[in-house]
Amino acid sequence: MKQGKNNQNYDIPETMKAWVLDDPEQLRLTEKPVPEPGPAEILVRVDAVAVCGTDLEILSYGLPAIIEGGSPFNKNYTPGHEYMGTVVKLGRGVDDFQIGDRVTAEVHAGCGRCERCREGMYTSCSNYGMNYGDKDKGHRANGFTTDGAFAEYAVNNVNTLIHVPDEMSDEEATLVVTAGTAMYGLDVMGGLIAGKSIAVTGPGPIGLMGVAMAKSLGAQPVILTGTRNSRLDMGKKLGADQVINVREENPVDKILELTKGKGVHYVLECSGASNALNEAAQMTNRGGRICLAAFPHEPVPVDLANLVRNNIYVYGIRGEGQSATHRAMAFMEQKRFDATIIHTHTFPFEDVPTALKYAKERIEDAIKVVVKIT
Amino acid sequence: MKQGKNNQNYDIPETMKAWVLDDPEQLRLTEKPVPEPGPAEILVRVDAVAVCGTDLEILSYGLPAIIEGGSPFNKNYTPGHEYMGTVVKLGRGVDDFQIGDRVTAEVHAGCGRCERCREGMYTSCSNYGMNYGDKDKGHRANGFTTDGAFAEYAVNNVNTLIHVPDEMSDEEATLVVTAGTAMYGLDVMGGLIAGKSIAVTGPGPIGLMGVAMAKSLGAQPVILTGTRNSRLDMGKKLGADQVINVREENPVDKILELTKGKGVHYVLECSGASNALNEAAQMTNRGGRICLAAFPHEPVPVDLANLVRNNIYVYGIRGEGQSATHRAMAFMEQKRFDATIIHTHTFPFEDVPTALKYAKERIEDAIKVVVKIT
Amino acid sequence: MKQGKNNQNYDIPETMKAWVLDDPEQLRLTEKPVPEPGPAEILVRVDAVAVCGTDLEILSYGLPAIIEGGSPFNKNYTPGHEYMGTVVKLGRGVDDFQIGDRVTAEVHAGCGRCERCREGMYTSCSNYGMNYGDKDKGHRANGFTTDGAFAEYAVNNVNTLIHVPDEMSDEEATLVVTAGTAMYGLDVMGGLIAGKSIAVTGPGPIGLMGVAMAKSLGAQPVILTGTRNSRLDMGKKLGADQVINVREENPVDKILELTKGKGVHYVLECSGASNALNEAAQMTNRGGRICLAAFPHEPVPVDLANLVRNNIYVYGIRGEGQSATHRAMAFMEQKRFDATIIHTHTFPFEDVPTALKYAKERIEDAIKVVVKIT
Amino acid sequence: MKQGKNNQNYDIPETMKAWVLDDPEQLRLTEKPVPEPGPAEILVRVDAVAVCGTDLEILSYGLPAIIEGGSPFNKNYTPGHEYMGTVVKLGRGVDDFQIGDRVTAEVHAGCGRCERCREGMYTSCSNYGMNYGDKDKGHRANGFTTDGAFAEYAVNNVNTLIHVPDEMSDEEATLVVTAGTAMYGLDVMGGLIAGKSIAVTGPGPIGLMGVAMAKSLGAQPVILTGTRNSRLDMGKKLGADQVINVREENPVDKILELTKGKGVHYVLECSGASNALNEAAQMTNRGGRICLAAFPHEPVPVDLANLVRNNIYVYGIRGEGQSATHRAMAFMEQKRFDATIIHTHTFPFEDVPTALKYAKERIEDAIKVVVKIT
Repeated sequence: MKQGKNNQNYDIPETMKAWVLDDPEQLRLTEKPVPEPGPAEILVRVDAVAVCGTDLEILSYGLPAIIEGGSPFNKNYTPGHEYMGTVVKLGRGVDDFQIGDRVTAEVHAGCGRCERCREGMYTSCSNYGMNYGDKDKGHRANGFTTDGAFAEYAVNNVNTLIHVPDEMSDEEATLVVTAGTAMYGLDVMGGLIAGKSIAVTGPGPIGLMGVAMAKSLGAQPVILTGTRNSRLDMGKKLGADQVINVREENPVDKILELTKGKGVHYVLECSGASNALNEAAQMTNRGGRICLAAFPHEPVPVDLANLVRNNIYVYGIRGEGQSATHRAMAFMEQKRFDATIIHTHTFPFEDVPTALKYAKERIEDAIKVVVKIT
Repeated sequence: MKQGKNNQNYDIPETMKAWVLDDPEQLRLTEKPVPEPGPAEILVRVDAVAVCGTDLEILSYGLPAIIEGGSPFNKNYTPGHEYMGTVVKLGRGVDDFQIGDRVTAEVHAGCGRCERCREGMYTSCSNYGMNYGDKDKGHRANGFTTDGAFAEYAVNNVNTLIHVPDEMSDEEATLVVTAGTAMYGLDVMGGLIAGKSIAVTGPGPIGLMGVAMAKSLGAQPVILTGTRNSRLDMGKKLGADQVINVREENPVDKILELTKGKGVHYVLECSGASNALNEAAQMTNRGGRICLAAFPHEPVPVDLANLVRNNIYVYGIRGEGQSATHRAMAFMEQKRFDATIIHTHTFPFEDVPTALKYAKERIEDAIKVVVKIT
Repeated sequence: MKQGKNNQNYDIPETMKAWVLDDPEQLRLTEKPVPEPGPAEILVRVDAVAVCGTDLEILSYGLPAIIEGGSPFNKNYTPGHEYMGTVVKLGRGVDDFQIGDRVTAEVHAGCGRCERCREGMYTSCSNYGMNYGDKDKGHRANGFTTDGAFAEYAVNNVNTLIHVPDEMSDEEATLVVTAGTAMYGLDVMGGLIAGKSIAVTGPGPIGLMGVAMAKSLGAQPVILTGTRNSRLDMGKKLGADQVINVREENPVDKILELTKGKGVHYVLECSGASNALNEAAQMTNRGGRICLAAFPHEPVPVDLANLVRNNIYVYGIRGEGQSATHRAMAFMEQKRFDATIIHTHTFPFEDVPTALKYAKERIEDAIKVVVKIT
Repeated sequence: MKQGKNNQNYDIPETMKAWVLDDPEQLRLTEKPVPEPGPAEILVRVDAVAVCGTDLEILSYGLPAIIEGGSPFNKNYTPGHEYMGTVVKLGRGVDDFQIGDRVTAEVHAGCGRCERCREGMYTSCSNYGMNYGDKDKGHRANGFTTDGAFAEYAVNNVNTLIHVPDEMSDEEATLVVTAGTAMYGLDVMGGLIAGKSIAVTGPGPIGLMGVAMAKSLGAQPVILTGTRNSRLDMGKKLGADQVINVREENPVDKILELTKGKGVHYVLECSGASNALNEAAQMTNRGGRICLAAFPHEPVPVDLANLVRNNIYVYGIRGEGQSATHRAMAFMEQKRFDATIIHTHTFPFEDVPTALKYAKERIEDAIKVVVKIT
């Protein structure tokens, strides 16, 4: 019996199908015990999971930000962190959710006890990865330091879950982490966005959701830069007032022209290009702010003098902090924009490797590839 | 064997002496099992505990802010929340502290999972009091919703503990919650205190520590108002640049005179007097800020028009949030002021009722009464 | 020649018609010299001006927040501060606007040099009213401390003007101060509004715009309370998810029911009712925030204990600070809601007394009464 | 007659001696008219002026951040911006200061009307340099865009002046801009400094004052890194708990060791070294913050991935914003540290070129070189 609605019971099997990581690039479908939710935890039947760029990095390089000495969970580890599903079992002390609720998950459940968590910065938890054996300090990051959602079931800390409204599809609900990351980027730059000019550089999933979030919050103009017109067109549909193809125009010159020489108030950098930070600093005005939501893998030359002389602040962001996913969900629920535009492909559970391949190689201009499990 | 130093073992008995609350005003010395620290918890041998005004309220009226339907823990409950001691046992996953460490405890360990805790406001935890049975959501408030420190041992969540420097006495270390509460009051009003003028109204323990905190942070002038010259003199020793005996002078007039008509930037209200908020609003300037760290028990007439017309912000504060105790401890450790001035009396463990009586009736002008246990 | 477009010249007469204040309640139409814009100033031909509740107070009681000793400008003073018009002459050093631009004006041009202005709190300028003779410190508050817009022309500091988009009517453009005041109220409570629950108490102009601003920023649910169903219906059109007629239901009970016992995150108090602050504090949750945008004229009993025990912050706001008018205009320009709903009546210039009467006595359920001058 | 005290009159000559800039590196002593203070301005008789690194840059390269097309004021321009003196004449509308007051000057008087000034960011004024002819928008930056203090008299906007306490020497009072810049750096990183660990990299004047400010605010430990033991010793006297000579030890390793692997909360980067930002990011912990108060002149390789993965914020700062000079002065007045340690040399007015040479070439390990004029 798989269907069910609020407060109905679900038959939970003892084992489940799950994809697990062996050596780099090696994903294998196997059978695992269905995990048991502990205090403050919930067992979710996974209904859909989207592929994130970080999944691809994990597949190749292992887990990010893991403590030295190697990670004890790479073998037999199940990735997947942009997912939604149905609540099927509650751990002790959980009454915020009910059996049958549809939920989507943000990634980070900080330990709740370190200095960073105590100041609300739980994605920067000092005890990141400390959730096993003697070092168990209660930290969890769904699909990063704990088993994720390329599986039939997943356990989550109650503080990572968000209710999904009835009228929202499973596929759309998987996009809330992406939208929340973009929202967090806007938050850290200051929060008062209405009427401010914003450039979003790089029309990947976070960049496109950044356009949607900025427009929802009232930014104007919202300017998107990128290399492919198909992506830029999506940006227009999501709220971009202007788009710039950087292969055709110099984005700094164009943005200065569009803003009558003033530059924009904020830049949300989502391209990871080598010169992106320097260009961002040239696009913004004195006292402007830049959020780095992407990065080049190697050190790149940066003109720090420009940052200092112009009182520019640069915010590196890790994940989707400050409950930004909840704010993103509010806009999605209120249908301020159509997030499903960035969902391009769907595969069944048994085709996870194909889904990953589509995402990695951008086959058929794939943006968000979703695996539908139930 | 009671002594011990870092990493030495302590013999922990199975039972301990503890004062417990029966009916209102009825405190009884009894024998209880020594509690066992769970994950993220630490067992502390209580060395000293100070009496707080809230202890006296609990004794008379029961626990504050408890969920409706009454509290299940009043019977056999042990109060006491301003305490310090020695770490004698570590729960699972604890390596932030070692056996033998001297520690002092702040009150609030939020649940770490509710919306408020997730934004860093753990003293306003939405799950306050939810730490028992089916409703156990991991919240703890030492000496409020869990057993406190009028006992030989107490269990604490690791996030409530603060290291005590070697050269600080047990008695002084119990004062950090009081100092932290005053610090939190200054924080919420804005944080940038140096060079700003501050009035502290009411020279009780929090008010006096408020003077010390404000001066440590560089406020000038720090003006203390009160009714008793002995208390005002203590204020001077703790950093007050000016004191006003409100029985001799009108504090509003005097403060306007001292500030050349401008009024002060901040008022830390610690008196709970009926007209205190109105006077505070008259003492401060347009755009000024007031923190309420005390309150009258009945509704009082307030001139709201003045607050609106002058863009005045009023901050009610609950406890010692934002890790303010840690910041207060930094100043105490750096000996910026002599906190021990407000410690006036010491009693042994068997005299807890006398200690409470001294604090309540202010016998011999008692301010902070400390019970020394070991 | 009255028409004109960007950079065309306007014939500016030497004198103009203006309504002036004599004794309380005495408004008289007269002829005055057209004022000359100084450095950083602009001469605006007034095209439309709305009646604000403060205009009615000024008419009866004189100017608010004026320095003691009485105001030197009440005689021959022209009120009117919610206005828009056309730029007809530029003072020295002005190139932010061009002749022919349509503009609307926010009220406050702080002195730009006092401590408050230097920290961005220009509506709380320490030199408020200091704009004449030896005490001229450059402060201006359009229509409060300087001549306002019940006249054919008015001078403004360049920092108070906002461009009006071509497609926006004159009448709608006069509403930006009201919307900006509501926006400022949301800002000071924290700024991150999306997904948060908000109660707006009192469906006057600021309350109704508060509903529109909160919804534009993504709040949910937005709950409006009031006494008249016609106003509550307007609230629904502007974005209220729920409305409560306080004559039919207890608003505290209803809000707790609607929020499953949690209460709302924010309350924007716009009623000025005697018990409004107490009810607001009961409607909100622990750690909640309340903005007072209205107030009772007499002191009222307030339960301060509740504010302190629940860590509630109360923000009195003065005017439309932090450039909130610009953010409000962004949402109006983006047509997130239809502000013109609250514009109910229009009168010609010669009928200013009738317009004021309609606004004061709420004749025909008048909300925003606009005087159209050209 | 040069002496005088509050409210006494001063004989002000018609001309004064002043050093002026011709071509790069060419400073010439000449006679100029004594300037006249306009509205909101004050004429100060310069008593002492310190040499800042920026003075040396101006001498070689011209004025920073000047609008394109070149600066109209380089010829006949008088540099010098870290100065103090005596109020000798008041412009219209000035009553915040009196004739005879001793004052010191911060650099930036923003225009008070642009978007940045309106939000309190006056050192990032959008109208920087707009203070002449048709483009006069009221901006002033003492000694940058207006004539400075290598002269007998200088005009200042009233909002740049700070009272100097009687007991403070002229020489010490010139240091407040340096201390204020360091303070601003701490502010932008968050403000709540007490008990936090801070690394200051680079023991130049700003770095040394950064140590003093951080310690005054209660930071612990304060760790200073540099290449010269003489400077590091000064740092110890100003409050550094630990110093690291980077020629002897790897500062990243040492700081991780000193902080038990945690890294510091904040880094105040004052060295401008090529690898300083990368090292700063390695010294700080996840969620940490870095302020850049210095910079290399050429682009340098930066590991942006580390900033993003660890949620690190980087703040470039321009000048001494947010009235940080006032807060710095409060600590100096309260004698929390001895700022005069960094004052190493004094020269008379006629030896300005020698003073500049000492500062530039660090002759006799010169740090702050002061020119005493009266």
